[in-house]
Amino acid sequence: MAPVLHTVPMTFANVGSLGTKPGHRDTVVSILLRPMPGLKEAGCLLYEVGVNDEAPDTVFVCELWESPAAHKSSLQLDSVRAAIAEAMPMLSGEMGGNQFTVLGSPLR
Amino acid sequence: MAPVLHTVPMTFANVGSLGTKPGHRDTVVSILLRPMPGLKEAGCLLYEVGVNDEAPDTVFVCELWESPAAHKSSLQLDSVRAAIAEAMPMLSGEMGGNQFTVLGSPLR
Repeated sequence: MAPVLHTVPMTFANVGSLGTKPGHRDTVVSILLRPMPGLKEAGCLLYEVGVNDEAPDTVFVCELWESPAAHKSSLQLDSVRAAIAEAMPMLSGEMGGNQFTVLGSPLR
Repeated sequence: MAPVLHTVPMTFANVGSLGTKPGHRDTVVSILLRPMPGLKEAGCLLYEVGVNDEAPDTVFVCELWESPAAHKSSLQLDSVRAAIAEAMPMLSGEMGGNQFTVLGSPLR
């Protein structure tokens, strides 16, 4: 039997946390919640931003992309570069998270 | 001005990793990818399962729920209990991840 070839890009997940300097979490959230023109066209399928009050200086993100390359290329979008530049001074440098290839869902 | 009241449930995110005993990752993935009847009706909005070959004994999940209570109640579904029971002997006990309240998205 011939091997199965992936003829469509594999969905790529990027889930993580961004540490913020004390008191700056909500400002960073507000920057990430502004519409980022071009994001969907770049292959972004989902981009959720949130918080957990047990971690008051952390912003959480959960992103799905059409491919790893789509995620990488989005970092060149003007809207994304502007958001990163604006948020950067408020970040602590503590970053966490995981990247993985989505294989499917029990919902489908 | 009156405080803003949340009149709709807040979307709840559960993103995490499950360590597996060596060689059992793909079996655990296959269990989690089987359709779980009742999951959508319980308030599951998204449930993605994946892997990263740089972490060969880890399964990654990214879940969105209508509320924390929806997530909690899903753990009582027969389909979810059966999947947990079947996967449990293959898990290493190493768990990671974050739970957070979704505030929005730059895609919307």
